[in-house]
Amino acid sequence: MTQGPKRSAARIGVSRHESGTWDRRQDSVAVEEPMEIRLDVPSTGGGAKGGRTKGGRAEVPVSVTMRTPGDDFLLVAGFLFGEGLVSDRHAIVDLRYCRNVTPQEFNVVTVTLRDPIDPASLTRNFYMTSSCGVCGKGSIEAVEVQGCTRLPRGELSLSAASILGMPEQVRAAQAVFEETGGLHAAGLFDAAGTLLDVREDIGRHNAVDKVVGAALLDGRVPLHDHVLAVSGRASFELVQKAVVAGIPALVAVGAPSSLAVDLAERFGMTLVGFVRGGAFNVYAGPERVEGAA
Amino acid sequence: MTQGPKRSAARIGVSRHESGTWDRRQDSVAVEEPMEIRLDVPSTGGGAKGGRTKGGRAEVPVSVTMRTPGDDFLLVAGFLFGEGLVSDRHAIVDLRYCRNVTPQEFNVVTVTLRDPIDPASLTRNFYMTSSCGVCGKGSIEAVEVQGCTRLPRGELSLSAASILGMPEQVRAAQAVFEETGGLHAAGLFDAAGTLLDVREDIGRHNAVDKVVGAALLDGRVPLHDHVLAVSGRASFELVQKAVVAGIPALVAVGAPSSLAVDLAERFGMTLVGFVRGGAFNVYAGPERVEGAA
Repeated sequence: MTQGPKRSAARIGVSRHESGTWDRRQDSVAVEEPMEIRLDVPSTGGGAKGGRTKGGRAEVPVSVTMRTPGDDFLLVAGFLFGEGLVSDRHAIVDLRYCRNVTPQEFNVVTVTLRDPIDPASLTRNFYMTSSCGVCGKGSIEAVEVQGCTRLPRGELSLSAASILGMPEQVRAAQAVFEETGGLHAAGLFDAAGTLLDVREDIGRHNAVDKVVGAALLDGRVPLHDHVLAVSGRASFELVQKAVVAGIPALVAVGAPSSLAVDLAERFGMTLVGFVRGGAFNVYAGPERVEGAA
Repeated sequence: MTQGPKRSAARIGVSRHESGTWDRRQDSVAVEEPMEIRLDVPSTGGGAKGGRTKGGRAEVPVSVTMRTPGDDFLLVAGFLFGEGLVSDRHAIVDLRYCRNVTPQEFNVVTVTLRDPIDPASLTRNFYMTSSCGVCGKGSIEAVEVQGCTRLPRGELSLSAASILGMPEQVRAAQAVFEETGGLHAAGLFDAAGTLLDVREDIGRHNAVDKVVGAALLDGRVPLHDHVLAVSGRASFELVQKAVVAGIPALVAVGAPSSLAVDLAERFGMTLVGFVRGGAFNVYAGPERVEGAA
């Protein structure tokens, strides 16, 4: 399970215009590269769609995603967990790079799974709902169908000072943002407000997958009594990933969407947004924030 | 082709913490809802994957995307164009909402296409490349496979003042951001620096699809000698959409990724980023920016 190198930033030449003058300088940009995920699963004889079968096992391509190289196995584990394709670390037997072709040496990850998968589970969860269909309510029901239940009230009690300090702690631990201005970060805090982990990626959802994947592989999910802090906005997708991981509180520097708020309310999650200038809003679950109501 | 209502912002109650005190107030959040795209195409007898066939035509589900309701038909047209599924406005016979079930009245759009589609074209463009596979080079080749060629040098000549003014013009025309802080915007400018169109969405890529879709349905693509300005960062996906639409210059308020810069260079696109505080960087194609080299 040796991961590929972190390549978060690349140096390139740019023409800079500032205060009416031009100069030529070197600048850092965030690295973006595709990564493909393939599953190596016990063959059920049904012929996995799009996959190849060999020796009682099948290889099934799952997705190609743009991401920032580094923590790839955490990203894969977190992604599969969020999609409901693996439920605990023991479901993952091995993670490795596919090394058949040189240029993409670290861009194709094959995951060996212990159990066969239901091909239908590779279809977006979306299509699994029926009572409503394609609407906000249906999206929320899809998370229920995935087996998620209301997050426990737990012991978590967040002070305003603790919330206000989270983005700064994440930022301080986020090495590359200052350099490129192009990476999102996700940070995991325990109930005492201690920062446990920070991961970066050009994609917000990838940064969250990396944090959740690290916890999954360490056997630390569900992450009850923890807080997830993200550098950007809070969309439905981010709240969904937190719900699946059992995280009862999400703190976003940016604004949440309507559906993110609805989903947080449905699962009893504390959703905090717009943490800036010494202020913030609690959009859902105020019972875990001291003084809020 | 009557579109559903724009529902960009929703009012919700929040607990606000500011300067050490709490109060309960109403706040606006950006609306996020799923939208499904289905194609209604002449049946080729091969049985479109996952689709239903009736009367010589087949209905094929294409995708479900989270988006901000409004300009839905523009979003669909721009998305299909960017994916290479339609090449001009005449390929689209009709756009309509599927109204069989009440709750998702405006969330399922069926597009009637003139021509049959190659089922393989519904597979991500990614898998269409072979010489490299999954790597940055392969991603760029996939755009070439889609039929895109180098953008013409054209007549476009951008002054620094014009570039510096674009984000402000987009912002001024962007009604909902100020209210929710949660919407991205994309603006289209002509060679004289006149703002022609602005569209908003919680997703950057959707805002660009809406702008391109509007131009497509008006018969205005390829958009040579135009400039696309976006409120956030410039990823590979945004540059790809601009390349497909023939737009030779992309101006982003945020940072570009490494692969966005590579793609811009490959297709001769002018890529400007970090437009803030009276300064900006030219990452590719300086020949269209006065004074840059």
